Amino acid sequence: MSESEGYTPPRVWTWDQESGGRFAKINRPIAGPTHDKELPVGKHPFQLYSLATPNGVKATIMLEELLAMGHKEAEYDAWLIDISEGNQFSSGFVKINPNSKIPAMVDHSTDTPTRVFESGSILLYLAEKFGALLPTEHHKRTEAMNWLFWQMGSAPFLGGGFGHFYAYAPEKMEYPINRFAMEVKRQLDVLNRHLADNEYMAGDEYSIADVAIYPWYGALVKGVLYEAAEFLSVHEYTHVVRWAEQVLERPAVRRGQMVNRAWGEPARQLHERHDADDFNTQTQDKIGESPE
Amino acid sequence: MSESEGYTPPRVWTWDQESGGRFAKINRPIAGPTHDKELPVGKHPFQLYSLATPNGVKATIMLEELLAMGHKEAEYDAWLIDISEGNQFSSGFVKINPNSKIPAMVDHSTDTPTRVFESGSILLYLAEKFGALLPTEHHKRTEAMNWLFWQMGSAPFLGGGFGHFYAYAPEKMEYPINRFAMEVKRQLDVLNRHLADNEYMAGDEYSIADVAIYPWYGALVKGVLYEAAEFLSVHEYTHVVRWAEQVLERPAVRRGQMVNRAWGEPARQLHERHDADDFNTQTQDKIGESPE
Repeated sequence: MSESEGYTPPRVWTWDQESGGRFAKINRPIAGPTHDKELPVGKHPFQLYSLATPNGVKATIMLEELLAMGHKEAEYDAWLIDISEGNQFSSGFVKINPNSKIPAMVDHSTDTPTRVFESGSILLYLAEKFGALLPTEHHKRTEAMNWLFWQMGSAPFLGGGFGHFYAYAPEKMEYPINRFAMEVKRQLDVLNRHLADNEYMAGDEYSIADVAIYPWYGALVKGVLYEAAEFLSVHEYTHVVRWAEQVLERPAVRRGQMVNRAWGEPARQLHERHDADDFNTQTQDKIGESPE
Repeated sequence: MSESEGYTPPRVWTWDQESGGRFAKINRPIAGPTHDKELPVGKHPFQLYSLATPNGVKATIMLEELLAMGHKEAEYDAWLIDISEGNQFSSGFVKINPNSKIPAMVDHSTDTPTRVFESGSILLYLAEKFGALLPTEHHKRTEAMNWLFWQMGSAPFLGGGFGHFYAYAPEKMEYPINRFAMEVKRQLDVLNRHLADNEYMAGDEYSIADVAIYPWYGALVKGVLYEAAEFLSVHEYTHVVRWAEQVLERPAVRRGQMVNRAWGEPARQLHERHDADDFNTQTQDKIGESPE
C-alpha cells in the first residue's frame, strides 16, 4: 500500500480487492447490479433515491425550492440509498442509473416513467419542467448553463481528487494532495473573482448554477467539507463566503440539506422524506444552524 | 518530489512553483489573466478558441456536424490556443472563459455577443440553437442529457486522474494509478453494458451525448489516449469498440479531430480553421486513417 519509489505499473491492471481503503466496498472496476432488489415507489410524482452528499443535496434543494415557490406538482418521495451498504448496486437502482451513483430520480408524471440521473441533469430537467431557477434572457441563461457545466467538470477535482487524498486515502501522499489542492484553490479563485462582480453565479438571479455549486464550494468555504478550511485558506475567498452565507439563508436550502441525511446531529437528519410535515418542529428548531 | 512515507501535510498549503512536473506552467492556484492580449475575431458567426484535446474536439466535431447537415449559420473560425504557452491566461481569453480552459466560444449572431464555455455547455448551446443532435422525444432527450452530464462528471477521473498519474506525473505512484484505473474500467463497463443494448448513447439516434463521450472513451478504446490500451484491457469492452468505430466513420468527426491540432502527423493538423476549404486535398487524403 505504501508508495514505494520506483514503482512500475504492470502490463495489465488487475483488481486487488484488498486495496482501496475505506471505499473498498464502494469502488469496483465493474458495473451492473450485485443483487436483485426493486426500489420502493411512493405516492408523489417524483421519486428520488439519494443520500445527503454534496451531489445528493443538489436535487433535494431544487425540489424544496420548487415546492417553496408553490409548485405542488414537484412533490416527492426521497428514499435513502446507503452507499456504504452497496444499495446503489441493486438491480432496481441500476435500472434507473446504470452508473450506480446517487442522486437518481424517476418522474412518474410523464406518460411512462422517465429516469433522470446525474445531479446536473436532474437540476436542468426540473428547471425546464417548471420554468424555474433558469433565467429566460438568452445571455443569462447561457451563463447559468456555463456555470452548471463548470461545476460538473470541476467538482471531481475537489471530491474525487482533493477530498479523497486529503481526507480519505489510507495514507497521506504529498504529490496528489499538492496537485489537487492547487487546482481547488484555483477553482475557488475563479469563483471568488466572478462573485466579486455578481450577486449570484448567473448574475442577479439565483439559479440552478448556485444550487449546483453551493453544496460543494459553499460547504468548502464554510469549513464543512474535509476539515480543510485552514489548509486551503478558505477565508481568503471573501466573495465566495459572502455568497455561501446568502444561499444558506434560504429555507429550501436548509431543508434540502437535511433530506436523506444519515449522519451527524440526529435533529438534522431526515432519513426519508415523503411529506412537507416530515420536517417536524424539533428539526425545524435546528435548521437555522450552519451545516456540519 | 518522492512520496516519502509518513508525509504530513502542512497546516496551510503554500504554492511551490517548482513542483508540478511538465504541467508546472499550466497549473496555477490562482485565476485571472497573466497578461494583456485581446483575442482575434474572424468573419463567421461563431468564434472558437481551442485546441484539439478531447474536450476541444467535442466543439469542432459538433460544428462540423452542423455544417454537414447544411446549417450554413454554423460557420466558424477556430483559433489555436496553445495552453503550453499560457494563451488561456490572456486577458481576452479570461473574458470569455474565466476558468481559463479550452474550448471557449463566442456567438456573434446574437444581439450582443454571447460567451459559451465548458465543452458540455457549448454542445448543448449549439444543439438547442440549431435543433440538431438532441432528440425531441421526451425520454430520449432526457437520456441524451443524462449521458451528456455523465461525461462531464466522469471524464475528470479519466483525464485529471488516470491520465495524469499513468502518463504525465513525474513519477509512477501505485495508489493513485490503481484508484483511477479501477474507476476508468468501471466507467468503460458502464458504457459497454449500455452500448450492448443501444446503438448510440441516447438510443437509436446519434446525439450530443456521443459527441461528448467519443473523444474521451472512444479514443481510449481505440488506443490513442495515454498508451493505456493494454493496461486497461480495452479490447474487453467490445460494444464500446463497435460504437467508437461507428462514430469514427462520420466525416464530420474526422474533420473535427483535425481542427486546432498542433502535434502528431503534419497532414492531420489544421492549426486554424476559417473556411471549409481549409481541409485541403492533401489532408483529405489522410483523414480516412484512425487518429493517433
